[in-house]
Amino acid sequence: MLRFMKKASKKAGLAPGTLIHVGEQKVENVRIRAIQFDQETLNESEFETVEECLPCKESRIVTWINIDGLHEVGVIEEIGRQFGLHSLVMEDILHTDQRPKMEDFEDYLFIVAKMLSFDQEKNELKAEQFSLVLGRDYVVTFQERVGDVFEPIRERLRKGKGRIRTMPPDYLAYALIDAVVDHYFIVLEKIGEQIESLEEELVTDPTPETLQAIHHLKRELIFLRKSVWPLRELISGLERGETRLIQEKTTIFLRDVYDHTIQVIDTVETLRDMVSGMLDIYLSSLSNRMNEVMKVLTIIATLFIPMTFIAGIYGMNFEIMPELKWSWGYPLVWCIIIAIAIVMLTYFKKKKWL
Amino acid sequence: MLRFMKKASKKAGLAPGTLIHVGEQKVENVRIRAIQFDQETLNESEFETVEECLPCKESRIVTWINIDGLHEVGVIEEIGRQFGLHSLVMEDILHTDQRPKMEDFEDYLFIVAKMLSFDQEKNELKAEQFSLVLGRDYVVTFQERVGDVFEPIRERLRKGKGRIRTMPPDYLAYALIDAVVDHYFIVLEKIGEQIESLEEELVTDPTPETLQAIHHLKRELIFLRKSVWPLRELISGLERGETRLIQEKTTIFLRDVYDHTIQVIDTVETLRDMVSGMLDIYLSSLSNRMNEVMKVLTIIATLFIPMTFIAGIYGMNFEIMPELKWSWGYPLVWCIIIAIAIVMLTYFKKKKWL
Amino acid sequence: MLRFMKKASKKAGLAPGTLIHVGEQKVENVRIRAIQFDQETLNESEFETVEECLPCKESRIVTWINIDGLHEVGVIEEIGRQFGLHSLVMEDILHTDQRPKMEDFEDYLFIVAKMLSFDQEKNELKAEQFSLVLGRDYVVTFQERVGDVFEPIRERLRKGKGRIRTMPPDYLAYALIDAVVDHYFIVLEKIGEQIESLEEELVTDPTPETLQAIHHLKRELIFLRKSVWPLRELISGLERGETRLIQEKTTIFLRDVYDHTIQVIDTVETLRDMVSGMLDIYLSSLSNRMNEVMKVLTIIATLFIPMTFIAGIYGMNFEIMPELKWSWGYPLVWCIIIAIAIVMLTYFKKKKWL
Amino acid sequence: MLRFMKKASKKAGLAPGTLIHVGEQKVENVRIRAIQFDQETLNESEFETVEECLPCKESRIVTWINIDGLHEVGVIEEIGRQFGLHSLVMEDILHTDQRPKMEDFEDYLFIVAKMLSFDQEKNELKAEQFSLVLGRDYVVTFQERVGDVFEPIRERLRKGKGRIRTMPPDYLAYALIDAVVDHYFIVLEKIGEQIESLEEELVTDPTPETLQAIHHLKRELIFLRKSVWPLRELISGLERGETRLIQEKTTIFLRDVYDHTIQVIDTVETLRDMVSGMLDIYLSSLSNRMNEVMKVLTIIATLFIPMTFIAGIYGMNFEIMPELKWSWGYPLVWCIIIAIAIVMLTYFKKKKWL
Amino acid sequence: MLRFMKKASKKAGLAPGTLIHVGEQKVENVRIRAIQFDQETLNESEFETVEECLPCKESRIVTWINIDGLHEVGVIEEIGRQFGLHSLVMEDILHTDQRPKMEDFEDYLFIVAKMLSFDQEKNELKAEQFSLVLGRDYVVTFQERVGDVFEPIRERLRKGKGRIRTMPPDYLAYALIDAVVDHYFIVLEKIGEQIESLEEELVTDPTPETLQAIHHLKRELIFLRKSVWPLRELISGLERGETRLIQEKTTIFLRDVYDHTIQVIDTVETLRDMVSGMLDIYLSSLSNRMNEVMKVLTIIATLFIPMTFIAGIYGMNFEIMPELKWSWGYPLVWCIIIAIAIVMLTYFKKKKWL
Repeated sequence: MLRFMKKASKKAGLAPGTLIHVGEQKVENVRIRAIQFDQETLNESEFETVEECLPCKESRIVTWINIDGLHEVGVIEEIGRQFGLHSLVMEDILHTDQRPKMEDFEDYLFIVAKMLSFDQEKNELKAEQFSLVLGRDYVVTFQERVGDVFEPIRERLRKGKGRIRTMPPDYLAYALIDAVVDHYFIVLEKIGEQIESLEEELVTDPTPETLQAIHHLKRELIFLRKSVWPLRELISGLERGETRLIQEKTTIFLRDVYDHTIQVIDTVETLRDMVSGMLDIYLSSLSNRMNEVMKVLTIIATLFIPMTFIAGIYGMNFEIMPELKWSWGYPLVWCIIIAIAIVMLTYFKKKKWL
Repeated sequence: MLRFMKKASKKAGLAPGTLIHVGEQKVENVRIRAIQFDQETLNESEFETVEECLPCKESRIVTWINIDGLHEVGVIEEIGRQFGLHSLVMEDILHTDQRPKMEDFEDYLFIVAKMLSFDQEKNELKAEQFSLVLGRDYVVTFQERVGDVFEPIRERLRKGKGRIRTMPPDYLAYALIDAVVDHYFIVLEKIGEQIESLEEELVTDPTPETLQAIHHLKRELIFLRKSVWPLRELISGLERGETRLIQEKTTIFLRDVYDHTIQVIDTVETLRDMVSGMLDIYLSSLSNRMNEVMKVLTIIATLFIPMTFIAGIYGMNFEIMPELKWSWGYPLVWCIIIAIAIVMLTYFKKKKWL
Repeated sequence: MLRFMKKASKKAGLAPGTLIHVGEQKVENVRIRAIQFDQETLNESEFETVEECLPCKESRIVTWINIDGLHEVGVIEEIGRQFGLHSLVMEDILHTDQRPKMEDFEDYLFIVAKMLSFDQEKNELKAEQFSLVLGRDYVVTFQERVGDVFEPIRERLRKGKGRIRTMPPDYLAYALIDAVVDHYFIVLEKIGEQIESLEEELVTDPTPETLQAIHHLKRELIFLRKSVWPLRELISGLERGETRLIQEKTTIFLRDVYDHTIQVIDTVETLRDMVSGMLDIYLSSLSNRMNEVMKVLTIIATLFIPMTFIAGIYGMNFEIMPELKWSWGYPLVWCIIIAIAIVMLTYFKKKKWL
Repeated sequence: MLRFMKKASKKAGLAPGTLIHVGEQKVENVRIRAIQFDQETLNESEFETVEECLPCKESRIVTWINIDGLHEVGVIEEIGRQFGLHSLVMEDILHTDQRPKMEDFEDYLFIVAKMLSFDQEKNELKAEQFSLVLGRDYVVTFQERVGDVFEPIRERLRKGKGRIRTMPPDYLAYALIDAVVDHYFIVLEKIGEQIESLEEELVTDPTPETLQAIHHLKRELIFLRKSVWPLRELISGLERGETRLIQEKTTIFLRDVYDHTIQVIDTVETLRDMVSGMLDIYLSSLSNRMNEVMKVLTIIATLFIPMTFIAGIYGMNFEIMPELKWSWGYPLVWCIIIAIAIVMLTYFKKKKWL
Repeated sequence: MLRFMKKASKKAGLAPGTLIHVGEQKVENVRIRAIQFDQETLNESEFETVEECLPCKESRIVTWINIDGLHEVGVIEEIGRQFGLHSLVMEDILHTDQRPKMEDFEDYLFIVAKMLSFDQEKNELKAEQFSLVLGRDYVVTFQERVGDVFEPIRERLRKGKGRIRTMPPDYLAYALIDAVVDHYFIVLEKIGEQIESLEEELVTDPTPETLQAIHHLKRELIFLRKSVWPLRELISGLERGETRLIQEKTTIFLRDVYDHTIQVIDTVETLRDMVSGMLDIYLSSLSNRMNEVMKVLTIIATLFIPMTFIAGIYGMNFEIMPELKWSWGYPLVWCIIIAIAIVMLTYFKKKKWL
């Protein structure tokens, strides 16, 4: 299977809204965490089962429930039932090959995006689906594995830093999306570094492996692009304030994320251009090498073939070959041969082949 | 004839609405099946002739008539007359080279799309035209051959699974389109597998046949793209709810199919990008090989040509050639020759040609 | 002159509306034919001069006047005066290098399009300008030469087949445009056949002539594209019913032609993609051949150069060369030579050069 | 300096509206000509200074003032003051590197476009800025040099041909723009001729100079495109009748110029496609030649190297070489050599290298 | 790090609105300058600390505060607090990797753009972030280093030249943006000069360094493009007068800057096209050279190999070789050899290889 294609065929033929998990299982156990906060108080808790976490829902203060691990369909189903999510929303959360999108269901807003990280060892992008449900006083987020992208936000909540504790849940949703988008810059930096080291390799010593690496990079960028482009639309949709769940004062922050997204897209396009340019350099460096090889061959052949011909002439066994009897015949042949070599070398110098 | 071009010339000059079948006959006999259902009851039946199936039309419960095989113009004509279809609609059903499209005739909605499957043996896409007429309480579908894409839907109807039995015919129409689109993912997976195996071939042992295969794949993707792109417009047209025949509550499901279609298009574009990249790799691997051949040639020629020259020199028959008389002349020549070889090999090592 | 550029400079500097014929004269004599019909009657007639045909205009039944041959400016001028056409319209009819377009002059509608045919002998597209003026109860058409594209429509009119006799003149205009567009499919088929045969040639025996043919085809497709793209806009303009001259019930038929036009455009684009792919195949087959030639050269040179060197060694005339005196010296040399050949051939086998 | 970049840096840092002439001086003296006309009368006059021409402005009949030569800032300034032009307009007239554009200042309309001509000797496009100010009853035009593009219009005015004398000044403005656009066709024809002759050269005898010529042409087309594309917008702006200065009845003529502009753009794009195709042909003809050279080399080497080897064998000086004593040894060697040659030639024939 | 990617990762995880400086420190000390002016008076002053400059804010005449150097977060924070700027605005000022954009905060307008300069020594573009806050009666600008781009504007203010002293602060803002855009033309000129010199190099003596230079240029153009494209949107946003802070009479001047921006974009695109063309020329010049080398090799090999073969034949030691005994054998061989050379040279002449 190509990496970016999930087993979509698994769900072909099923009724829409049928809940099955599409994607690899990435964590052992589902982990359910909740943070409830208002300006004064903050409760952080972790639960074993969905049932335990239900009381959260009842409280009137902002609640953020975070579920790590999507392979237990029952958990998602229970959450969905409690928060009154449409069956298609639950299906989308479980099918981890969604295109980033935003859907407005009046009572809640459903957002899907990709969290990316760069696996240094395998030299490839890792994508994880991130789903977010924003209700009137709660935010529920779903991730495929326990990650540390949201840790700074938890920290900010705990310390009461910034305006996050005083704002409604849509600001929390914004903060989460912002964290995801900011993380893209880190991925881009890693790719940028790779491009840099490849460029050096290209100039000093290009090998077929360099080509493989360039193509690998190109593909990672295609993959990255696929994750980022739809985000633009998504965030601009949020920003235009078409939904009652996003408040006026959050809009200006969304505009900021939007700018970042545009910047990510711009950078991806620039990197793509650069990688394309590297291909050109690679191919022309191949030609250059071939030229060099050809020149060496030509010089050697051109120098020695005429000289060998002359030696061949005087290797003939004709009975009457006056030159063979001349006492200065042999030195003369050497002189001729050396003269030929000098003339040729001069010609090559002029042609800039030497 | 190119595969994707049907004998369009067959119909040139005919009056619009003239019913002739354009395309190959793909089944022996036309097969007419009907399923009638509401929440409580389900009647499934199969008919020999159109006339037999007409009573279905009269009942007030949801009726789905499925016709497999388009070569008998009479059958289509009869159906068309019974359901009051426009002659152009019937023409479009019979001309199996339609571009996917949706047309709203107030009383009924006409949808044409392509069903795709991947023929493993011939390694090529097979396309079949799928037409759907959605009326107030019926759905009529036309396929070129008996297929199993809709079998899961029939199964769901029989078992009363999901909401399909409780919903109006537009939901059934949605379910059918969804099945068609979901099937594209299977085709994409097959193509993805092909790309993967070709990529390996490219790296290990590219042959002119690899190029043929890449181009074949590229063409299949062009063909696939042609089938999928118009679908986007089609479904977004349905979703925007411009027609009274699609109810509000079905719209959200259509949005889901729309997302899937976008995903199919995205994947097709990504695959196209990948196939283009493979062409670059192929061409540069050709150059690499040429380089390798050149290097071998150069090394051999460069090593032996000067050595042969020296042998030629002492093969000359001059009467006065003092070296020939030296007792250590012959070993000296061998030394010179070996020295030349060593110098050259060192030079090649430095140049990284060895 | 490039084929698709008419002598536009001929008209530079002239006052707009000045009537001169731009293009080649394609028929000997201008031919004027008229068909007048309603549901019951049909009059077909042919005239020598414009004056004779004027009475047609007076009758209240649908009149179709067809003029073949545009080189007699006087004829067009007279027609224009009789039907009250704007001088720019007459200019456009005569300048046979118009881009397909539609113009609404309230009282009449002016349509210009290209009729294409494929000249099998010269292997090139032939384009002819087709102008149509649609009035309240007449259609006037202008062609550059007598053609048979409209013959089926005349036939239908004569036989009273289909709805053509019962419909207003806008339906006749539709039928004519439909005939033109349908004809494009025939041209596309011919080009498709060419592509097919070229593809075979590419695989079996590509020559520089193949490249020429590919480029010729590419250019024909550029030319075709130029004729077809504007048609899309034209017909969609007609279909949107922005003009009073097109009746509601004709709109649905125009939608059909529109679909056909889109299909033509789609096919042209697909063919272009295919032709581009052929170029890639051609170029890589060139490289492949070069590789093959190189390999033969390398193998021969590599086999014989070392062997020749050995023969050269024992052709030297040193007085003291012990090997020359050995009784088994000569067979030994042969053994060495054969051993070298075997080693090398094995090496080449391993490299897959043999 | 690249030809199409004027000394823009000259004006950096200056206050907007500062009048300095940017561009080369192309005529010795500024030439001021005026034509005043209505249906009955026509006054043509030429002035030394701006002051002389001012009375023109007062008359109520249509006045066309034409200024050739832009290097005298004072002249332009005076005109600007008299006609109440905005300082930015005067700046734009003097900076001859404007992008074609149209600006509506309520009282007058300001239009800038490029007049192109093709310099046969230098084989390059010459562009000249053409500015036009259209007021309620006057047209003022500015050119960089005395040209003959407008001569036919003057002629028409003098002879009272066409509707030009009876129409308001916006029709005169249209006529001038039309003349400019019509002139593009002449330039396109010249480029078309160049492409044709280059194509022949490509097929018969491509040299590096051909490549230079193709690239030169490509660049001229980029330059042409830059001048023509904005024109489309400009004229469509005029045609949409957003300004009171353009009357309803002139609109239809502007639609005609618009069509011509589209045609020019279409042709430019087609020519660009053709030139790109020529590059492909050039490159593959290079490869073809290389192939041919390689084949000759391979054939010669392949024929003679084995033959030389055999000659080398019997040049060895072994004491015991029985073949050398055979009476038919020498003819036998010749037979072997000839046999080898025949086998090889046959092989090459089969490979189609001969 | 790639040059155009700033350490974005530095800010990932921080709360939005957290003020840290992203970018290199480019000046030693922050420099704060203020100019206050109306039609009669002008005060120019320079301050050590922000506090000193605060009284400026109170006066009712137009105030322009210019801050050079962004590394002291405290300064920016203080300014922001005094002028009531949103924390996101301050963040954007400090993060010097912003995409050019304009944001309207009702009370003030925030504009970010790039100031570019061309570093002749390193042969690369230098970008500096330029931020501008436009309030009802003040303009605050932030630059990364002390520059001389705005010096002409200061000069104009001092001398009271032009309308700048009589206009509201939005005109000053326009003048500053205009200065920035005008500066782009100077950068373009420098790049244009580089392209010119590279073109000459390409024709006379292309080296791998030329390729490096072409790619370097290509990348600089990508970088330039990234800075200029968003400007178009920015200025068109200002020009459309969507904000109360831009007055009607300034709009016409903004249209002028807009035209300049379009021209810059146009030129960048044209330069990109030219650079792409240069790559093609480079690659085909590589092929041409290879061809030349191949031809020399072929000519030498082809001339001497058959001649050497003949010499080899008569070097054989057969006892019975009648030619060896002929008295005119040796001269005959020379004749044959010369004849072969002549025939071959003639053939090469015909092939145009000589």
